Amino acid sequence: MRYVFLTNGGGAHEDAKVASLSKRLGLSIDEDVIRDRVILSHTPMRGWADEVKKQTVLITGSHPETARKIANEYGFERAVTPADLIHANGDLYPFDNLKDTLHSEFRPLPDGKSASAIKDPYSKSLAGNALKIDQILVWNDPRDWSLDIQVIHDLLVSHNGYLGTLSSRNGNRGLPNNGWQQDGQPELWISNLDLVWKTEYPVNRFGTGAFLEALKGVWSAVTNGAELHYNALGKPSQFTYDYAHTRLLQYYSTMEGGGEVGGRKDATPLRRVYMIGDNPESDIRGANEYCPEDGTEWVSILVRTGVWTETETEREPRYKPRAIVDDVVDGIVWALRNEGVDVDRKTLLAGGG
Amino acid sequence: MRYVFLTNGGGAHEDAKVASLSKRLGLSIDEDVIRDRVILSHTPMRGWADEVKKQTVLITGSHPETARKIANEYGFERAVTPADLIHANGDLYPFDNLKDTLHSEFRPLPDGKSASAIKDPYSKSLAGNALKIDQILVWNDPRDWSLDIQVIHDLLVSHNGYLGTLSSRNGNRGLPNNGWQQDGQPELWISNLDLVWKTEYPVNRFGTGAFLEALKGVWSAVTNGAELHYNALGKPSQFTYDYAHTRLLQYYSTMEGGGEVGGRKDATPLRRVYMIGDNPESDIRGANEYCPEDGTEWVSILVRTGVWTETETEREPRYKPRAIVDDVVDGIVWALRNEGVDVDRKTLLAGGG
Repeated sequence: MRYVFLTNGGGAHEDAKVASLSKRLGLSIDEDVIRDRVILSHTPMRGWADEVKKQTVLITGSHPETARKIANEYGFERAVTPADLIHANGDLYPFDNLKDTLHSEFRPLPDGKSASAIKDPYSKSLAGNALKIDQILVWNDPRDWSLDIQVIHDLLVSHNGYLGTLSSRNGNRGLPNNGWQQDGQPELWISNLDLVWKTEYPVNRFGTGAFLEALKGVWSAVTNGAELHYNALGKPSQFTYDYAHTRLLQYYSTMEGGGEVGGRKDATPLRRVYMIGDNPESDIRGANEYCPEDGTEWVSILVRTGVWTETETEREPRYKPRAIVDDVVDGIVWALRNEGVDVDRKTLLAGGG
Repeated sequence: MRYVFLTNGGGAHEDAKVASLSKRLGLSIDEDVIRDRVILSHTPMRGWADEVKKQTVLITGSHPETARKIANEYGFERAVTPADLIHANGDLYPFDNLKDTLHSEFRPLPDGKSASAIKDPYSKSLAGNALKIDQILVWNDPRDWSLDIQVIHDLLVSHNGYLGTLSSRNGNRGLPNNGWQQDGQPELWISNLDLVWKTEYPVNRFGTGAFLEALKGVWSAVTNGAELHYNALGKPSQFTYDYAHTRLLQYYSTMEGGGEVGGRKDATPLRRVYMIGDNPESDIRGANEYCPEDGTEWVSILVRTGVWTETETEREPRYKPRAIVDDVVDGIVWALRNEGVDVDRKTLLAGGG
């Protein structure tokens, strides 16, 4: 039985997540149960093309400096944080910029670029040292929504990603999306769309998805209702399911002699994949909507131990799983039985399944 | 000629604003030019009823602790900040809570209330010490959008304003607004709706209105598209124009012997009021839409020195002023001429108008 752990968590390195998860589960760190099986929300960015990794990217998250270090390890050479920008231009953010506390860590802008080279936002002649951002990477749970939304907005309304400029196409009704995001602005990537997650607090807490909704709200007001174009990773994104699917195929090929590592052609195909998750909006939705090229079926199973709670007004979640079970053990039992294996919870827990 | 300064600025005490404005204009602080004429975004709350001021309110803004002190001076006895809440319950906000920096200042909750009395959000029996919030006051430019939106959301989905509860009416399609904000939740007040304001930076910066749009975006996602019910002060709110109108009437009555201070009945009526402003969405819109009970006409004049810039795609602002002039001096000239006074810019500036 092959499996991966697909989490929308992020903001730490994969190895750090494996270590903390191993510790929580009482496993030794090099045990095969987890090692190399953890896929974080931003892990698929590891596989991005080298020419993209050479571009200048804005990166933010719960701890932008930590995110940058991981991105550097992924191969992103020119990663800029919002903190870099406020240190480079004191006028950029007009409120308490928290330069001495939250945003005390920063680096000079790459390649000697400047964040204050633009004086006239509509000028056609741009200084050679004007900072240009090519991609915006929003990793898990941005902490400083106010600053991050300001900076992301600035790039999305810019000409060609030059910070401090304004595209003359903005609001032009003759263009698609009324001219918004039609002028070479950076692509916006969000590491996951989870609106809420379950913590010790009695009411679910907001996650990265809430940040996106806040950004969308501001964007809608700025643009008078234009769409916000963005790409999402993490569950339920098809990018993430595809990455997981490939990893599962690779396990077959590596471990059972099916061919080259990562070589899809040679990999032994999967018969069925069971996605057990607690979040209807991410885990279940993503599995239901995912149709891999090789035709493998993904079956969704929802557990009651997580985000979703049955209430008077919500008897069933919006995205319906194939089965709802009490916990992950029951999920595995359900899956095995569905495959014709005669097993029950007790024998499975005793290791006799 | 009677006048007031109507600003959507806030977060400081009125006297502090007068002092800083006097200094900037090179005036002595007790000069009649400004003293008692400055109306901030939150100034109308001074006039709220005593029974409201006795309620428990959540207050936030650019510096929640400063806002609380001003609110205390206005007469609000039980003002709670988001910082109070995270100090009272460490589970409330699951990310860096910045307790030692941004949110280091806090007070114990009023009347010995607790922010962790609720364990089951749907429980019908509430502990006597559970914290209940009656009003939410968002003053200018909240700094910590992530925390503030979490806390405001929590109160807006609560039963009767009890922090940590969830209303069983939420999402009930048989109720108005699908059951959202239909269960005694606190009223939400925003001190102004300015989406952007002009600073030294080449692109306008976000203001309090952007915070509201972010909140609306999150609210829409949480509620699956329900409306967010709120009240706004500041321009273009009619509350604010009404407050300014009353103040202008009071000047007449105080200064020209028209009757009791603040006594509308006895006040000499105004003939016409000219609203000179730089922001079409607030200054101009508010003046255009304001119809005082006494029938006085408010005439809007837009200056080019502020937020609004004529661009290729926006020749005229969405909210159209009666006149567009270069600056505030030209605005006064336009108004005086409209009243039949033969004056030009030069004589006005020379003090000969």
